[in-house]
Amino acid sequence: MSAGRQLRVTVWNENVHERREESVKRIYPDGMHTPIADGIRRELGGNVSVRIATLDEPEHGLTDAVLAQTDVLTWWGHAAHERVSDAVVDRVHSRVLDGMGLVALHSAHMSKIFVRLMGTSCTLRWRSDPGGEREVIWTVNPSHPIAAGVPQPIVIAHDEMYGEFFDIPAPDELVFINSFAGGEVFRGGCCFHRGLGRVFYFSPGDQEFPVYHQAEVQRVIANAVAWCGGAAARANDVPSQRTGNAQRDWYL
Amino acid sequence: MSAGRQLRVTVWNENVHERREESVKRIYPDGMHTPIADGIRRELGGNVSVRIATLDEPEHGLTDAVLAQTDVLTWWGHAAHERVSDAVVDRVHSRVLDGMGLVALHSAHMSKIFVRLMGTSCTLRWRSDPGGEREVIWTVNPSHPIAAGVPQPIVIAHDEMYGEFFDIPAPDELVFINSFAGGEVFRGGCCFHRGLGRVFYFSPGDQEFPVYHQAEVQRVIANAVAWCGGAAARANDVPSQRTGNAQRDWYL
Amino acid sequence: MSAGRQLRVTVWNENVHERREESVKRIYPDGMHTPIADGIRRELGGNVSVRIATLDEPEHGLTDAVLAQTDVLTWWGHAAHERVSDAVVDRVHSRVLDGMGLVALHSAHMSKIFVRLMGTSCTLRWRSDPGGEREVIWTVNPSHPIAAGVPQPIVIAHDEMYGEFFDIPAPDELVFINSFAGGEVFRGGCCFHRGLGRVFYFSPGDQEFPVYHQAEVQRVIANAVAWCGGAAARANDVPSQRTGNAQRDWYL
Amino acid sequence: MSAGRQLRVTVWNENVHERREESVKRIYPDGMHTPIADGIRRELGGNVSVRIATLDEPEHGLTDAVLAQTDVLTWWGHAAHERVSDAVVDRVHSRVLDGMGLVALHSAHMSKIFVRLMGTSCTLRWRSDPGGEREVIWTVNPSHPIAAGVPQPIVIAHDEMYGEFFDIPAPDELVFINSFAGGEVFRGGCCFHRGLGRVFYFSPGDQEFPVYHQAEVQRVIANAVAWCGGAAARANDVPSQRTGNAQRDWYL
Repeated sequence: MSAGRQLRVTVWNENVHERREESVKRIYPDGMHTPIADGIRRELGGNVSVRIATLDEPEHGLTDAVLAQTDVLTWWGHAAHERVSDAVVDRVHSRVLDGMGLVALHSAHMSKIFVRLMGTSCTLRWRSDPGGEREVIWTVNPSHPIAAGVPQPIVIAHDEMYGEFFDIPAPDELVFINSFAGGEVFRGGCCFHRGLGRVFYFSPGDQEFPVYHQAEVQRVIANAVAWCGGAAARANDVPSQRTGNAQRDWYL
Repeated sequence: MSAGRQLRVTVWNENVHERREESVKRIYPDGMHTPIADGIRRELGGNVSVRIATLDEPEHGLTDAVLAQTDVLTWWGHAAHERVSDAVVDRVHSRVLDGMGLVALHSAHMSKIFVRLMGTSCTLRWRSDPGGEREVIWTVNPSHPIAAGVPQPIVIAHDEMYGEFFDIPAPDELVFINSFAGGEVFRGGCCFHRGLGRVFYFSPGDQEFPVYHQAEVQRVIANAVAWCGGAAARANDVPSQRTGNAQRDWYL
Repeated sequence: MSAGRQLRVTVWNENVHERREESVKRIYPDGMHTPIADGIRRELGGNVSVRIATLDEPEHGLTDAVLAQTDVLTWWGHAAHERVSDAVVDRVHSRVLDGMGLVALHSAHMSKIFVRLMGTSCTLRWRSDPGGEREVIWTVNPSHPIAAGVPQPIVIAHDEMYGEFFDIPAPDELVFINSFAGGEVFRGGCCFHRGLGRVFYFSPGDQEFPVYHQAEVQRVIANAVAWCGGAAARANDVPSQRTGNAQRDWYL
Repeated sequence: MSAGRQLRVTVWNENVHERREESVKRIYPDGMHTPIADGIRRELGGNVSVRIATLDEPEHGLTDAVLAQTDVLTWWGHAAHERVSDAVVDRVHSRVLDGMGLVALHSAHMSKIFVRLMGTSCTLRWRSDPGGEREVIWTVNPSHPIAAGVPQPIVIAHDEMYGEFFDIPAPDELVFINSFAGGEVFRGGCCFHRGLGRVFYFSPGDQEFPVYHQAEVQRVIANAVAWCGGAAARANDVPSQRTGNAQRDWYL
């Protein structure tokens, strides 16, 4: 992101669990999007402007106008993947290919937009024990910008287990690998380049645990927003992306 | 492919240009699928059984029964991408994720199945001059099985130009890079792993030129069939792909 | 490996711990190379011929003649990395670039030959508790030939902990990720392509534990030998590797 | 690079051809390092401080003190690779692994430091015709920072041909592919991550042609310096790189 220009972030949340389940409401009384947005603002400060969008808004809050003014979109969904309209998914997909960043969180691994960008089933192994279990997140790419300022390891006291095999294309850059008390491992921080856009998947964050209140998790998300936003800044003027019918005299 | 077991190949062709355009009919009087199938048979001999399927057959010749008996599918389409039914695309996609190989040829870069597996637009730069232009194919991964026995370079006297930027995810393995008389370059031989399946995209082959009659091109396609078929053999017994709800006692 | 031709394997072992430490001698009375070679023979049967070479032999048993007849070399070293002569390392390095496979085991991550092929420090985090700790090995690339027939997961009851950050280039293919009772993770099964050769690093195998007697570990090593040997077969006739001064008339 | 902190660049040149050959002296009367440094200063302005170092200086101008104050090193060498002392190569190698960036230019593909970081032979195909030939550089990764503001394609009227097969590990990110009038192709812009450092190889630049005076080439080099410098800024505080003996209580 060039100096002097704010990165425009839209934090999207389906916001279903928080309203219908008491256990989740207690953790996220203002919706999961609130601590996610707060963390981005705290870490990136004046370099960023953050807006919220949720499933129940018209067009899920993701109109053409909103997306045109979004450099990076974060996405949390789980209970209502199927309620996201295909037209909105098409629109978001198109924007990612044009350079908008996408940060997909936790159960967004099964969201329509993430599955569409991956081309695979995106299934994984999971275990939802009451109380969750300890998750430990290791940096395997320490000079990657998304790992900046992140402790080695990050320990999350209680989270849902997500384990391999995770059916995704091999990530272009693998940043984090997580382990669980049960012995499982998971590629929990994965970068993908799709079209002109950057995509980051970050696995912690089950709704039953206060994961998005943890400062280290917020730091990773903010780093990911900044990294994904790097492509957005670039894509405003990318002559080299031009495709289509070419004259033989391109070099004249 | 384990010894003693034939690799079952289905050569799919939309077979539209060959029937409606005289210029194409002259080059491929029996359809493009014929020299493609012949080349596979010649190179892989008794290790392979080849069947043909085309757009106009019921379910495009790609019924559940046919796909269940297909280890590797080759695909040529151009004029009629939109006429391929979504149900068949779903079926092929599912089979690739389960381990069936897919060899996508030339204009299949815009086929529904390839675009779905990639997650990007798959657009490229092209030039369709009458007479075409010289295409030169360089191996950049000489120990890759798909380059086995292939001269350095392969020269195709006349082909349509396909040039960068080609909007695909970075290939998992890049085997060939092509140049054209006009000066363009193209990542013309690309391997992708999707689910348990292997996908190879090979760019030569415009319908206006006898590219699929050229022995070296046939050799590459046969190599690609054999390589993609390696995963198919494996996927018949892959306990490690199991995903879903995991008990804590997995290791007992 | 083409049918009818045996894969020639040399199992190299520094064979130092086994002779000077009682605890190791009890586990590997005939040297660690013996169960490693036995496992390869059992899994690959008549398709393979195996010879042994150790540090104390002249030229460490890796003469020009031996290497010229070796398709795949496996390497275990730890206590005596510095005693391996640079001339032999040069020779092995040159053979790998010409297409010989290399399977580097456990503490071979710090061997001269592995470090030279990687170009990085190859350091890692470790913990040598008496009794070791449980290691669990997960397949993250289930259609990879090296994972064929391997349970998900492999559990090793007692091993030394190897953890991230492991300072290697990003593997070309990541096959296994390991976790440890202490919560650490490790990229424990990594493929690299260097020149015409294939390299596989497999991390289990501390000398204090009977890891190489475990059938599943032997299976992985045999799979790795077969996979690395695929390139060796190819490299016998690779015109495309030719480099050097090129005439303008290469295509005539 | 964090705002308010200059990126410290050292432009290294063997500076041999420019002094002994009239044809080169005419193109680069002040040494090739001068237009390289000028281009970096012009593009990066106040964000960068540039110093020069050459082969004939004590320790080739690359003392511990200089390297400790270098965030990114650019390297041009050809005639005198063997005169670079191994001690200096060790020192540069160590600094790259600690996070210093390295931009290797043209014939630096055979420099000791580049070969050491790659682990392969780094040989290629070449042709040195008098007058050179047209080279066309295509962006295949348009959202990569190194391609920012670069035309599609860059045309260099006269350069030495560098062609495939180029014996390097598969680049972590492939940015440019070049074609030549003779029909060859070359992976001419390649990113590698080694340790905490970023390495970029950029192939144009034979001494017989005024390539480094071309503004577009200077732009790529400046972009590469900025990109490689991103890691250098990070590596000043990377707790996650810590390796070595680990206590079991790391997470307490």
